[in-house]
Amino acid sequence: MAKAAAVSPFAPKALPAVPEIDGVRFATAEAGIRYKGRTDLMVATFAAGTSAAGVLTQSKTCSAPVLWCREALKGGSARMLVVNSGNANAFTGRRGSEAVAITVDAAAKAGKCKPTEVFVASTGVIGEPMDAGRFSGLLAGLAKSGKANAWEPAARAILTTDTYPKLVTRTVKIGGTEVHLNGFCKGAGMIAPDMATMLCFLFTDAAIEAQVLQRLLSGHVKTTFNCMTVDGDTSTSDTCLLFATGTAQKRGQASVTDAADPRLAAFSQALHDLMRELAIMVAKDGEGLSKFVTFEVSGAEDWAAARKIALACANSPILKTAIAGEDPNWGRVVMAVGKSGEAADRDRLSIWFGDHIVARNGERAEEYVEQTVAAYMKQRDIVIRVDVGVGSGSATVWTCDLTHDYVSINADYRS
Amino acid sequence: MAKAAAVSPFAPKALPAVPEIDGVRFATAEAGIRYKGRTDLMVATFAAGTSAAGVLTQSKTCSAPVLWCREALKGGSARMLVVNSGNANAFTGRRGSEAVAITVDAAAKAGKCKPTEVFVASTGVIGEPMDAGRFSGLLAGLAKSGKANAWEPAARAILTTDTYPKLVTRTVKIGGTEVHLNGFCKGAGMIAPDMATMLCFLFTDAAIEAQVLQRLLSGHVKTTFNCMTVDGDTSTSDTCLLFATGTAQKRGQASVTDAADPRLAAFSQALHDLMRELAIMVAKDGEGLSKFVTFEVSGAEDWAAARKIALACANSPILKTAIAGEDPNWGRVVMAVGKSGEAADRDRLSIWFGDHIVARNGERAEEYVEQTVAAYMKQRDIVIRVDVGVGSGSATVWTCDLTHDYVSINADYRS
Repeated sequence: MAKAAAVSPFAPKALPAVPEIDGVRFATAEAGIRYKGRTDLMVATFAAGTSAAGVLTQSKTCSAPVLWCREALKGGSARMLVVNSGNANAFTGRRGSEAVAITVDAAAKAGKCKPTEVFVASTGVIGEPMDAGRFSGLLAGLAKSGKANAWEPAARAILTTDTYPKLVTRTVKIGGTEVHLNGFCKGAGMIAPDMATMLCFLFTDAAIEAQVLQRLLSGHVKTTFNCMTVDGDTSTSDTCLLFATGTAQKRGQASVTDAADPRLAAFSQALHDLMRELAIMVAKDGEGLSKFVTFEVSGAEDWAAARKIALACANSPILKTAIAGEDPNWGRVVMAVGKSGEAADRDRLSIWFGDHIVARNGERAEEYVEQTVAAYMKQRDIVIRVDVGVGSGSATVWTCDLTHDYVSINADYRS
Repeated sequence: MAKAAAVSPFAPKALPAVPEIDGVRFATAEAGIRYKGRTDLMVATFAAGTSAAGVLTQSKTCSAPVLWCREALKGGSARMLVVNSGNANAFTGRRGSEAVAITVDAAAKAGKCKPTEVFVASTGVIGEPMDAGRFSGLLAGLAKSGKANAWEPAARAILTTDTYPKLVTRTVKIGGTEVHLNGFCKGAGMIAPDMATMLCFLFTDAAIEAQVLQRLLSGHVKTTFNCMTVDGDTSTSDTCLLFATGTAQKRGQASVTDAADPRLAAFSQALHDLMRELAIMVAKDGEGLSKFVTFEVSGAEDWAAARKIALACANSPILKTAIAGEDPNWGRVVMAVGKSGEAADRDRLSIWFGDHIVARNGERAEEYVEQTVAAYMKQRDIVIRVDVGVGSGSATVWTCDLTHDYVSINADYRS
């Protein structure tokens, strides 16, 4: 089958202008790990005093880099981040851990730091042994040549089947001092984050202690990346890391050491918004998509129940293909609500496609006109709202449709 | 998108010769509920004294006929079965229950029986009001004109997107008396039975009391229909009913009133085999399939854990598309095992494609030769075996691949 070549119709026309973050530098290289003629290695270096937080996949078959990050996060301090695309270094046994060790050692030497201050992430094929020797020799040079404004090359080097880089920014004040928050991520298939999406890196010059950062990140992952799915397939490599260089202290920001500090409110909100924007960008680059779809569920027992119902819709192949076919097949929404296993009152269930009510109190709405809703389905952005009539829990989940191109891309990705 | 017209490559060349079952008669009609030029209504009549058992969907948005069968099963006795295709009578509110009541009343009059001895099932579009008046007038005539040998027309009248009828038979002895067991079912998409597949009807002339029948049926559903999936989408209408006319008593079979009766062993085994064969026939008619796939999981904590891991594989879009592309992408098996949430020892995980070991103890097997396994993937029947290395639980799940034709069929089914 031919590989779909098209760029997602949701690809932004241009990347945003992203401010530098004092204390963060990037370098990239073509290491030839799997791809030809493109960068596949990214190295970030951090100023001394950078704190780190992270959320990693809950997969029982997680990758060697994920296991390493879990250890390194205990220190809460970061000086280097090394990311490669083309090989996930997952299910590679003892050799996988050795490849991580080689990478971490070379990076620690290059960055003159402790091994536990080096974070690593890998994305690409699962199960192929990874030859870290191929790029470990490059790390010393990359650590020295990093540039403060190389955000776009960094965001590009980590992509796999993505059709566009995903890079966003926010500026916010902490106690009167302006701080920046930049982030980028990758992911297009095998996307159903259990704790974080495949790879996401967030950077700020704010001075925030590691355990406070961790608290913010863990909380926001729940309602952003964990409410987004492309195909229901949770990756072995999901990694979301947040680095805070603390360089805003030079401009007067007193370090935040308590998660309850009221000065954090605006930062926390900006972090949430930024993570939400990145999660939506991943769904908007879902493999082979033609439509971006939002499921808003209300009336559930609680947030978790609403999320589960919304995910049952967002992961239903038969509903996602109907959306691809521009068919307002709301019977399949009913099916997905029913299969979720969460409480729903069949006789109080109501469904809207956009602003059009299609079902009310357990049956087709009287004002439903198929042609009107069919016309709505021709839009690129589809919002489907469901009220299940049993409580006050609500949640929103973002996804895309399931098209011929998804099949083409994934029947053809490896061979 | 064009609807895939092809018949499943697994369609049997001919239907089996099925013996009559004393006390069961079938009639069919073209009621024009949705389809043109084909039968869409099936009526079975049963001899007095027929006992009934059933397993119904666990969906929270189950159809009106499912709700009715749940009530009728309390009586354990059956004289009529009325099944229509084209409209599922699901999510049709009060009007849905009224359509069932109209059907049941007309059938009870036609069959001169109690309403609770009438069983109904509907399959087709969800959410469209069903006009039972369209066919209730036909029931009196159909109840009289039933034939004992009309198994094939009956099996055909209940189909929707199926590409072939699914009809099987067994003959077995109970205490020296030969009894027959016939069954047919339908289903090709929206198939991930939670308690039973969409519609399955089983018939025997054995004399077995209703609560014993129920015990047998409930037990066997677990390891047959509930271990089969096409797309992970559980229907609103799953219904599996077993009718025993008891007419074998005329030939000397003493009625079975105790589930522990040793005379039941052969019958129970035959019932299991027959249900397994029907479940496999559904997977082999999975919408748009090109390959039939069996996942055998061993080394899990228990049967339930093994089944959950096997279902995670069988419902993974990214793995099913790789199989469609004949790509031995076993990394995606690793992913699916990991996402299942069940215990698995990453470093003791082993995977086979057919007889070819591809991974052993958490990494690629040394004897793995990609070309050999790629050649295996060109077969129509694919068996993927996984040992997760933590216990002695094992389970088998049947499914099919995910192809362009699945997308075409479901982007186009309703409109």
